[in-house]
Amino acid sequence: MTAAPRPDSIAAETAYILARLGVPAAAFAEGAITVRSPISGEVIGRVAEAPAAEMSAAVGRAHAAYLAWRKVPAPKRGELVRLFGEELRAHKTDLGRLVTLEVGKIVSEGLGEVQEMIDICDFAVGLSRQLYGLTIATERPSHRMMETWHPVGVVGIISAFNFPVAVWSWNAALALVAGDACVWKPSEKTPLTALATQALFEAAAKKAGAPEGLSQLVIGGRAAGEALVDDPRVPVVSATGSTAMGRQVGPRVAARFGRSILELGGNNAGIVCPSADLDLVVRGVAFAAMGTAGQRCTTLRRLFVHDSVYDALVPRLKKAYGSVKVGDPREAGVLVGPLIDIRSFEAMQSALDRARAAGGTVHGGERARDDLGADARYVRPALVEMPTQAEIVCHETFAPILYVMRWSSFEDVLALHNGVPQGLSSSIFTRDLGEAERFLSVEGSDCGIANVNIGPSGAEIGGAFGGEKETGGGRESGSDAWKAYMRRATNTINYGRDLPLAQGVTFDVE
Amino acid sequence: MTAAPRPDSIAAETAYILARLGVPAAAFAEGAITVRSPISGEVIGRVAEAPAAEMSAAVGRAHAAYLAWRKVPAPKRGELVRLFGEELRAHKTDLGRLVTLEVGKIVSEGLGEVQEMIDICDFAVGLSRQLYGLTIATERPSHRMMETWHPVGVVGIISAFNFPVAVWSWNAALALVAGDACVWKPSEKTPLTALATQALFEAAAKKAGAPEGLSQLVIGGRAAGEALVDDPRVPVVSATGSTAMGRQVGPRVAARFGRSILELGGNNAGIVCPSADLDLVVRGVAFAAMGTAGQRCTTLRRLFVHDSVYDALVPRLKKAYGSVKVGDPREAGVLVGPLIDIRSFEAMQSALDRARAAGGTVHGGERARDDLGADARYVRPALVEMPTQAEIVCHETFAPILYVMRWSSFEDVLALHNGVPQGLSSSIFTRDLGEAERFLSVEGSDCGIANVNIGPSGAEIGGAFGGEKETGGGRESGSDAWKAYMRRATNTINYGRDLPLAQGVTFDVE
Amino acid sequence: MTAAPRPDSIAAETAYILARLGVPAAAFAEGAITVRSPISGEVIGRVAEAPAAEMSAAVGRAHAAYLAWRKVPAPKRGELVRLFGEELRAHKTDLGRLVTLEVGKIVSEGLGEVQEMIDICDFAVGLSRQLYGLTIATERPSHRMMETWHPVGVVGIISAFNFPVAVWSWNAALALVAGDACVWKPSEKTPLTALATQALFEAAAKKAGAPEGLSQLVIGGRAAGEALVDDPRVPVVSATGSTAMGRQVGPRVAARFGRSILELGGNNAGIVCPSADLDLVVRGVAFAAMGTAGQRCTTLRRLFVHDSVYDALVPRLKKAYGSVKVGDPREAGVLVGPLIDIRSFEAMQSALDRARAAGGTVHGGERARDDLGADARYVRPALVEMPTQAEIVCHETFAPILYVMRWSSFEDVLALHNGVPQGLSSSIFTRDLGEAERFLSVEGSDCGIANVNIGPSGAEIGGAFGGEKETGGGRESGSDAWKAYMRRATNTINYGRDLPLAQGVTFDVE
Amino acid sequence: MTAAPRPDSIAAETAYILARLGVPAAAFAEGAITVRSPISGEVIGRVAEAPAAEMSAAVGRAHAAYLAWRKVPAPKRGELVRLFGEELRAHKTDLGRLVTLEVGKIVSEGLGEVQEMIDICDFAVGLSRQLYGLTIATERPSHRMMETWHPVGVVGIISAFNFPVAVWSWNAALALVAGDACVWKPSEKTPLTALATQALFEAAAKKAGAPEGLSQLVIGGRAAGEALVDDPRVPVVSATGSTAMGRQVGPRVAARFGRSILELGGNNAGIVCPSADLDLVVRGVAFAAMGTAGQRCTTLRRLFVHDSVYDALVPRLKKAYGSVKVGDPREAGVLVGPLIDIRSFEAMQSALDRARAAGGTVHGGERARDDLGADARYVRPALVEMPTQAEIVCHETFAPILYVMRWSSFEDVLALHNGVPQGLSSSIFTRDLGEAERFLSVEGSDCGIANVNIGPSGAEIGGAFGGEKETGGGRESGSDAWKAYMRRATNTINYGRDLPLAQGVTFDVE
Repeated sequence: MTAAPRPDSIAAETAYILARLGVPAAAFAEGAITVRSPISGEVIGRVAEAPAAEMSAAVGRAHAAYLAWRKVPAPKRGELVRLFGEELRAHKTDLGRLVTLEVGKIVSEGLGEVQEMIDICDFAVGLSRQLYGLTIATERPSHRMMETWHPVGVVGIISAFNFPVAVWSWNAALALVAGDACVWKPSEKTPLTALATQALFEAAAKKAGAPEGLSQLVIGGRAAGEALVDDPRVPVVSATGSTAMGRQVGPRVAARFGRSILELGGNNAGIVCPSADLDLVVRGVAFAAMGTAGQRCTTLRRLFVHDSVYDALVPRLKKAYGSVKVGDPREAGVLVGPLIDIRSFEAMQSALDRARAAGGTVHGGERARDDLGADARYVRPALVEMPTQAEIVCHETFAPILYVMRWSSFEDVLALHNGVPQGLSSSIFTRDLGEAERFLSVEGSDCGIANVNIGPSGAEIGGAFGGEKETGGGRESGSDAWKAYMRRATNTINYGRDLPLAQGVTFDVE
Repeated sequence: MTAAPRPDSIAAETAYILARLGVPAAAFAEGAITVRSPISGEVIGRVAEAPAAEMSAAVGRAHAAYLAWRKVPAPKRGELVRLFGEELRAHKTDLGRLVTLEVGKIVSEGLGEVQEMIDICDFAVGLSRQLYGLTIATERPSHRMMETWHPVGVVGIISAFNFPVAVWSWNAALALVAGDACVWKPSEKTPLTALATQALFEAAAKKAGAPEGLSQLVIGGRAAGEALVDDPRVPVVSATGSTAMGRQVGPRVAARFGRSILELGGNNAGIVCPSADLDLVVRGVAFAAMGTAGQRCTTLRRLFVHDSVYDALVPRLKKAYGSVKVGDPREAGVLVGPLIDIRSFEAMQSALDRARAAGGTVHGGERARDDLGADARYVRPALVEMPTQAEIVCHETFAPILYVMRWSSFEDVLALHNGVPQGLSSSIFTRDLGEAERFLSVEGSDCGIANVNIGPSGAEIGGAFGGEKETGGGRESGSDAWKAYMRRATNTINYGRDLPLAQGVTFDVE
Repeated sequence: MTAAPRPDSIAAETAYILARLGVPAAAFAEGAITVRSPISGEVIGRVAEAPAAEMSAAVGRAHAAYLAWRKVPAPKRGELVRLFGEELRAHKTDLGRLVTLEVGKIVSEGLGEVQEMIDICDFAVGLSRQLYGLTIATERPSHRMMETWHPVGVVGIISAFNFPVAVWSWNAALALVAGDACVWKPSEKTPLTALATQALFEAAAKKAGAPEGLSQLVIGGRAAGEALVDDPRVPVVSATGSTAMGRQVGPRVAARFGRSILELGGNNAGIVCPSADLDLVVRGVAFAAMGTAGQRCTTLRRLFVHDSVYDALVPRLKKAYGSVKVGDPREAGVLVGPLIDIRSFEAMQSALDRARAAGGTVHGGERARDDLGADARYVRPALVEMPTQAEIVCHETFAPILYVMRWSSFEDVLALHNGVPQGLSSSIFTRDLGEAERFLSVEGSDCGIANVNIGPSGAEIGGAFGGEKETGGGRESGSDAWKAYMRRATNTINYGRDLPLAQGVTFDVE
Repeated sequence: MTAAPRPDSIAAETAYILARLGVPAAAFAEGAITVRSPISGEVIGRVAEAPAAEMSAAVGRAHAAYLAWRKVPAPKRGELVRLFGEELRAHKTDLGRLVTLEVGKIVSEGLGEVQEMIDICDFAVGLSRQLYGLTIATERPSHRMMETWHPVGVVGIISAFNFPVAVWSWNAALALVAGDACVWKPSEKTPLTALATQALFEAAAKKAGAPEGLSQLVIGGRAAGEALVDDPRVPVVSATGSTAMGRQVGPRVAARFGRSILELGGNNAGIVCPSADLDLVVRGVAFAAMGTAGQRCTTLRRLFVHDSVYDALVPRLKKAYGSVKVGDPREAGVLVGPLIDIRSFEAMQSALDRARAAGGTVHGGERARDDLGADARYVRPALVEMPTQAEIVCHETFAPILYVMRWSSFEDVLALHNGVPQGLSSSIFTRDLGEAERFLSVEGSDCGIANVNIGPSGAEIGGAFGGEKETGGGRESGSDAWKAYMRRATNTINYGRDLPLAQGVTFDVE
C-alpha cells in the first residue's frame, strides 16, 4: 500500500482509489461517457462506450470461458469466489469509498454495500459444496431416479446505479459457483465502481487460475443492453432497474426462450399499528425512507399510520425529516447525500407537485444545499401527508418522498397496501401477534419481502431477494435463488434387464 | 352403475361414457366445434365454442373462488385433490376408454394416462402437508427470518390434444393444493375428455365442499387462449403445445409480468453405444418411438447408433417397425393407433419427403389402413436412415418418424445430440458406466430429462418434468415443481427493541 | 355391513366390533392377559400372551418379509399404505369406538385417533415418491456425489396404552413406505385395538399383494419387550412410554449399536401472559389439561399465570374444572372419561397428597363417579394452586392434574418452565409478539414442541413430533422424521480415468 | 514469522513449530503423558494430564460460554469459524508438519488433513446463513407451523490419534456455527497437535470477540473421557475410535438421555469386477490400503477380486506392495510411514499369524526399517491372500493389512462384503453400469459410504461421513450432518380467535 497522501478533490481521490484497486488510468481518462460525482457534480472520469460489436464479442469470450469453467468442480469454482471475497475484504475501504464518490452514498452505506458483496461470496463458497439436487424414489424396480443441477452458460447482468456493485456480486457470485460465465453491463452512471470491481475480480481470477474471460464488463448504453438481452448465447439475463426497462427485457428474453431474473421497481409500504413501538418506528422509517436518499429499490415510500397514533408519530417523523443532516456524504453525521443527478431532482419535484394537486401536504422536499456544486442536487427528504392513495402514490419516484396516510380498519389498510402495481417489499410495525401474522399470511402483504418491526429495506443476503407483480418476480441472493443460474436435469437410470413402463403401461413388440 | 349394454359405435359409446361420467348430453350435442374420433374419423360430439366474453368471466369466477380457497388450510385443499383422485380411481376404465376414443390411444395408454392423473393426485395430497419454505439463520440478534410460500391466484392451463387430461391434472393437482384456482383451455380437438374430467372434478368438489368455480373449463380456440394469456388476473399460465405457440405465449405473459410454465416441443434422441443390451434397445426404442403413434412430446425422434452395432440393431428395428400391429386402438394386440387427423398425416408425409431429399432412406411411413374410415389416418411408423442430421431432423414432426444415424466418436455424437433447438428429453443405451455418467454430466445431454437404458418417454410423476431451450424451460409434476404455482415471501421479524441494520450499516436519527 | 343390532354391554359391543373388523373370536376369547374396559372395569377380552420364543420368531418372519419388501419400489410400498388408509377410512367409526371401549376416550377423541392414522397414511403415500436424498457438488473432476436413503430392516414398535393405535401407525406408515418391516408390541392394557388394527392391515396387505409377515403383532409383557429390544435383527426400536422404560431401552439398544426413537414422558407447561386472550386460554387449557383425562404425553401439566391475570383466569379455570362433565365417555357431553385403571387413580391421589404437603391447594381430584363400576375410576380433574414448583410438580403424573403457579418476570418464568427434566411440549398464551418470539427462540422453551396460543397437546402429523431431555430425543411423524427409519449412503462415483484424491493428497505408486 | 533456522531433531522441530503456532513451551515441557514421535520413537513432549476435576470444570466453562454464544447470530458465529479457517490457511504448513511429526503421516497427508479442516470451515461458514428448518402447511385456519433449529449446548468431542485434528474440526466447525460450545478430549497419543489447534482457535476467537472458553481442550486418559461422557451438561458426545470404545460410550450417553455421534471401526472392502480398469484399481487400492500406513478408519482392508482378473491384478498389487517406499514420512518418495507404536505392530503381527493359521498366504508385513529408532515400528504393508473370509478378516486390525479373496458370483460377493459387523465404507471397481448400480442399491453395500471406482477412503467433506452397524451410525461433516449438533423445535402459532383442534377433535367447555 502506498503512503502517498489521499488527494482532496473528488476527481483526484477517485483516480487515486482506482489506481490502488488496479484500474489503469487509461480506462477512465477519456470516452463518450462522462462520469460525474453526485456529491459535487464534477466530472470524475470519462469512459469509452463499447463499440457496437463489443457486446457480441464479450459474450463470445464469456461463452468460451464457460465451456472450460463448467468442467471445473464446483468447490474449486468456490475457491475463486472465496479469493474474490478476500480481495473485497482487503479493499473494502477503498471500494466503499468509491461507491460514495460515484453514487453519493454515505460512508457507512458505501462500506455496507461492499460488506454485502463479501457476505454473498461467503455464502456462495458454502453453496459450492452443495448445489443440491435430489435423489428420488422411483416406481420401477431396478431403476434409480435423481435430479442434478448443471451450469447453464453465460449470465447477462444489467445493474442499476443505486447498488452499482452489490447487485452484480449477488448475481456473479452465484453464477460463478454454479459454473456459469458472466457479462456485466453496469449503469452508464456508475462505470467506475464497475471498473474497480472488475479489476478486483481479475486479480482473484488470476490467483485462482480461472479461465480467461470468465467475467466480462461491457460499458455502454441502451444498445449494449439490447445486444445482451437478445443474444441467444445468454440463457439467463438478470436485470435490475425500472419497471419500464423490465417490460422491455422480459418479453425479449422470453421470445428467444431465455430466462429472466427481473428486479424492478418497488413501492414499498409500512403499516404502523396502534401497539407499535414508536421509537422503533421513527428509527426504522427514517432509515428505510431517507437512507440512500430514497434511492433504494426497497426504500419505504408509503406509510400507513393508524389513527390512534398518527398524531403521536407524524410530528416526530416530521421533526426527524426536518433535522436530518443533508450534505456531503463523506462528512460525519450526514445521513442523506445527494440525488444521483438533476433529472432525478426534477422527477421528484414533479411528483411533489402532483401530490399537492391530489391534496397532499408536503413537508420538505426542497433543494437543501446549493453550495456544494451547481450540478449537485441535495434535497431535504419529503414527508407528504396524503388524504388518499392518489395516483402519484402508486408510482415509484426514485427519490426521498414518503407518502403518509391514515388508516383505521386493518382489512382496509391491507387492501391499500396491496393496491399498487409493484410488489417488492413491505413492513408492519406492531407488537400485536395477530396483526403481525395476518400481515405475513396469504391475506396480508402481496410482496416478495414482508417484514415485521423493521422497514422494508436492508435485506440480509441469506434470504431470497425479489418481488412480485411489476417488480418482476425474480429472486436473487439466498435460499434457493441459485437455481435460477443453473439448469435442472431429471435422470432415470435403468440398471435391470427389464423395461417396465411407468403408470403400468404395456407395449410389447416382437 | 347401469347394466345397460355398452354400445357399438364410437359415437354411441362416447355418449354412453360421457353420461356415466356425469356430463349432460346437451354439453356435446351441438356447437361450432366438431369432435371426431381419429379411430374412424366419425363425429363423436359437437361442442359449443365459448363466446368472446366467457374467458374473462371464467377468470373472474375462478378469481372469486381463489379468494376463498386460499384461506382453506392446505391439508384440507389436499382433501379435495384426494377425493378427485378417488373419482378417477372409480372411473378409470371409463375415462381411459374415452381417451382412446377421442385421441386414438391404445387401451393400455389410455388407462396409463388416467393412472398418471391418479398418481399426481396422491403426490399432491402428500405435498398438502408440506409446501415447505425455510427458516433461515439471521445475522441480527433478536430477529427471525423465514420464507413462506403462498397461493398465487388463478392458474391458466392450456393443454394439447395428445395428453388431453393428464397434463391438466399435473397442473391442476399442484395448483389446487397450492391454494390456486384454475382455468383450463383444452385443445379444440379434445373437448370431450375435458368435459368428462371437469365433471369428475365437480363431483369431488361438491363432496369436499370446495368453493364454487374453483376450476373453470373454457372450450374455445385461439381467441380464448389469447384472452387467457393476456388476462392480468392470471399470474401463472401453464401452456403445453408447440414451440410456435410458446413463442407467442411467453412474451405476452412476460409483457404483463406474469409467469409462464412452458412445455413445448421436443426432438428427443437416443444414443446406442457399443455395449448396449440390444434386446433392451429394441423394446425401448419401439415404445419410445412408436408409442402413442409418435405423438408424445417425449417421443423418440432421433436415434444415434454406434457403427459397431448398427448392422445388428437396425435390421431388428426395421423388423419391429414392419411388424408392429397398426390399427384400431381398441383392439388387443394393436400398438399403434391412428394419427390425430389428416393434417398430421400430411405433415408426416411432407417430412418424409424432405428426409428423402436430404438423402434419407425411408422404411414405412405409408398409410397403413384405409379400411377404418375415410377421415382416419393410420400410418406404418417410419424408420428413416439418415446420412446426416439434416435440417428436417432438427424439426419436431408430431408423427411416428424415427431418424436413425450412425456415430463413431462419443464427443461427436454428444454434439449432434445437442445440436437441435429443442431440449426436452434424451437417453443413452449403454452398459458402460463412463458413457452413462458422461451423458448425465454437464458435458452430456442438454435436456431437462436424461435417461439411461430407457427411452426418453414415459416419465414418472415424482421427477420434475420439462425441458430446456425451445422446449420452454418449464417444470411440472414432481420435485419442487409446485413452487411455480405459488409465490414466495421472505420474512424478517424483529422482536427486540433495537434496530440493527444488515451489513453493519449505521443510521441514527434524533 | 351387517344389520344386526349393536349390543348393549361393553364386552358384547367389543366382540361385535372386533368381528366386524375381521378379528377372529378365538383371538380374544382366552389367555393370560385380561383386558378390562376402563369405562366399567368389566372384562372385555382375554388375550394369550405370546410364548417366550414368539418374539424371536416374529422378528424372523418380519426380516424375511423385509428382504422382499425392500426391493419393491417405494411408490408401490406407498400403495399398500394407501390401501391401509382406505381400510381405516372405511372402518373409522368402528375402530374409533373400540378405542373408546378399550381406553375410555370420549367418542370425538377415539375418532380423532383414527383420523390421525389416516392422516399419516396420506402423508406417507406422498413420501413414497420422495424419500429425497441429495445430489452434491464434488471437488473432483469426472466424479459424481450423491446421497441415497435405503430401507434399514425390521423396526420394533413398542406403544403405550394412551394412543393404542395412532402411535403405531405413525411409525408403521413411515417404516413401510421406507421399505422396512415392523414388529409391534402394544401395551398389555390395549391388545384389542392392536388386534383390530392388525386385521385391517392384513386386509390391505392382501389387496396390495405385500409379502407375508410384513407387520407382526406380538402381544406380551416385559419379556416380549426385552426380546424385541435386544434382537440384533432389529436395527431400529421405536418406544413410546415412560421415562423409566426409556432409560432401559436406550442403553440396551445402544449396546448393540441399534438406533432408538424414544417418545417418553412430558411435563408440559403453558405460560399465560398479561395480554393473553383469556377466553382462548380457558378453552385451550381445558382441552390440553383435561382432555383424554390427562393421559396424553402432551397433556398440559403446569400452568404459569401472570400475576396480573391470575385472579381473572384461575377462577374461570376452577369453574371449568368443577363443571366439566365426567363420566361414561360414550355419552354425549362427557368430556372426561375414566382413568385407565386403579393404579393410575392411586398414583394421582398420591401426587395430590404430595402437592398438598408442598403447600398446594387442591381443587377437585376426587373420585367423581362410583356408580359406573367398582373397578372403574373416574376422577374430577384436579387444579392445584402451587406456591412454588415443588418436586412433585417436576414429575409426570399420568392423570388430570394441572399445577398452577404465578409469575411476574418473564425471565424467571422461562427458567421455571425449563426447570424440569422432561422436554416434550410447551406453550405460551400471549398477544405480544415479543413474548411469543422469545418463547420460540433459543432462550425460550427447551422442548421439542413449542406452541403459541394453543396448548401443548394436539399436534398435527405434518410436523416432527417428539422432545428433548428425558423425553428421549426421538422424532416421529412429519418433516424429515422418516429418515430415522432408513439408512443413508454417501456415494462417490468416479467415471474418469484418473484418481484424484480429496484435499489435494497425492499418493503415486509404480 | 521468525527467520530462525528450522531445527534438525524431531523434538526440536516439534518445539519450534509449537512455538510458531503460539503454544507456550510450558504446555509440553513436563507431565505424565509422554508424547513420542512414531517416526523415531523419541520423546517430543511431555504433557500434563488434567486433574480429576478438570473435565467437570471445563464443561462448566464451556457451558457458560454457550449461554452467551447461543445468542450470537449464526452468521456472526460463522465469522469466528471463517477466521479460524484463515488461521489454518496461514499455518497450514506448520500444522501439517506437526501432524507428520506426531502421527507419522507423510507430508502430503499431513497437509491434506489441514486442508480438510479448512474445507469444513468454509462449508460451515456457508451453513451459518442456512441452518434451515422448514415452514410447513398446517391443517388449521389462522395457524402457522414451522420448525426451527436451536443450539443444543456443550458438545463433547473425543478424537483418535489417526486424524488428530481433522476429526475435531469436523465436529467443532459445525458445532460452533450451530451455537454450541465444545470440549475436546484428544487421543493421549496426540496432545501436541491438539495444543497447536487450540492455540490457533484461541487466536481466531480473540479476533472474533467470541466468548471466553467456547472451546475447551482437556488432555487426559480414560477417566477424563468417562467424565465427559457422563456429564449431564453435555447433550451431545461425538466419539471417534474403536468399536470397543463406542460400545461403552453409546449406552452411557443413552442412559442419561444424551445423544451420541459414533464414528467407530471400519472393515472396508473393495470388489474388483471383470471389467474393472486395473490401472485404476492398482492405484486406488494402493492408496486406500497402504495410505496412512493402514491407519485410517476408512482404510481398505478386504479386497474381493473376480476370478477372471485375479491373476492379472494380484501380482501387480504384490509388486506395488513390495516396492512401495517405507520410511521416514518426511522424506520425499516415502508413501508409508511408521505405525503409531509398538502395540500396533504387535497387533498386526498377531493378526498375520491368525491369518496364516486360517490358510492365508502373507506377503510382506514384516518390520521394514529398524534403523530409524528402537521404538519406531515401520512395516512393509501386508497383502494376504485368503482362501475364505476367516474370522480374523472380520476384525479390524489397525495396520496395513489387505486381505485378498476371490469371487465368481456377484450375489455371493455382496454377501461376503456385507458379512462383517462393521459398516463404514466400501467400494466397487467396475465399468459395468449394472454392477455399479446394484452395489449402490439397497441390495448392495450396507455401509454408510459406498464408492465406485475409487477406494473406500478419502471422503470429501461435502457428503455425510459415517457408517452403519458397529461403526456406530453417526454422521459428521457435510449434507445435513449439522442437525446432530442442534435441537429441533416444532412450532404451531395460532393467530386467530378460534381454537380448532387437529384431527377434527372437538372439546368445548363452558
